[in-house]
Amino acid sequence: MTTPAQPLDFYFDFASPYGYFAAMTIDELAARHGRTVAWHPMLLGAVFKTTGVSATVLRPLQGDYLRYDVVRSARYYGLPLTWPTVMPINAVAPSRAYYWTVSRDAGLARALAKALYRAHWQEGRDISGIDAVADVAAGIGIDADALRSGVQEPAVKEALRAATDAAMARGVFGSPFIFVDGEGFWGADRLVQVEGWLARGGW
Amino acid sequence: MTTPAQPLDFYFDFASPYGYFAAMTIDELAARHGRTVAWHPMLLGAVFKTTGVSATVLRPLQGDYLRYDVVRSARYYGLPLTWPTVMPINAVAPSRAYYWTVSRDAGLARALAKALYRAHWQEGRDISGIDAVADVAAGIGIDADALRSGVQEPAVKEALRAATDAAMARGVFGSPFIFVDGEGFWGADRLVQVEGWLARGGW
Repeated sequence: MTTPAQPLDFYFDFASPYGYFAAMTIDELAARHGRTVAWHPMLLGAVFKTTGVSATVLRPLQGDYLRYDVVRSARYYGLPLTWPTVMPINAVAPSRAYYWTVSRDAGLARALAKALYRAHWQEGRDISGIDAVADVAAGIGIDADALRSGVQEPAVKEALRAATDAAMARGVFGSPFIFVDGEGFWGADRLVQVEGWLARGGW
Repeated sequence: MTTPAQPLDFYFDFASPYGYFAAMTIDELAARHGRTVAWHPMLLGAVFKTTGVSATVLRPLQGDYLRYDVVRSARYYGLPLTWPTVMPINAVAPSRAYYWTVSRDAGLARALAKALYRAHWQEGRDISGIDAVADVAAGIGIDADALRSGVQEPAVKEALRAATDAAMARGVFGSPFIFVDGEGFWGADRLVQVEGWLARGGW
């Protein structure tokens, strides 16, 4: 009897464009190697507050580069991109919506996360408010009223806090951050190494 | 008559491990597309001072990750790596040695830059002092005494200042930073896109 392969842990912030790139491909990447992915939306802002580091997009020079690199990388990956009207957003509402949904239907929560990323990074919509989140959720068949009250549940708020704390405890400081059998990789550009690690079982 | 292809501009700090990765492959990468590379050692510390940003390796969480990622990436790229005894070094002396040498023999200066990177990142030597730099230079046939006095020349000091200022003016905030026909790419992990840009003439 063999131990079933562990899922990849995928930490991300909905405000992160590189998280969007990873979100659009990571399930298929993992599936090519017989793996699944556990999605963990979290709040990078909480990490920045704890570590005293500022968001990349707000750093001098680097922020300008990020804006340029994201657009050019989207074309390179062949992924649609519309620069959001508001960026970086506060991702509390979309993240809580994910944790409320996952407690009821994991597959639907995955679909919601992807729909939220598409709304924000493909359509450029501001998804920081619960109205926008509920609208996106309704678009994939989630009961918008149930979601609106669901995100207020203490257990849902706690799930997001716990995910963010767990991420920080594992050394996550950026998005996306992917763990493969305990091995942590930061950045959409490390998906090449993630795939190599899965294919070869390390190197 | 066609305009000759412009060389790539390669900005780097000798203290940067990702600069080392790029330095070991960029000439060959460019040559595959009929291009040459202009090497520009510069001082990231001056950029950090101006922008108020701290060196990556000194940031909480991210610094620990960098140390791990560098070792793992070296194995991934198949490049030797010994963690330097001192890191990050102040790269004034090796950078000035490059600019003194380039004013006399461009090919030898290129060889010196690679030898300095190997001494620092393959052998783990501290190359911040002029003694270590002169020793490495002597190893590739450069007159150590001439180099020791050469790095004190005002024109050599000015060449390094000018390179650092030019880099900052072009938006360089990290190492390596590569420009292809005005298009800037940050990071050894962007060499894949650099090669794509050369092959396709953009996208």
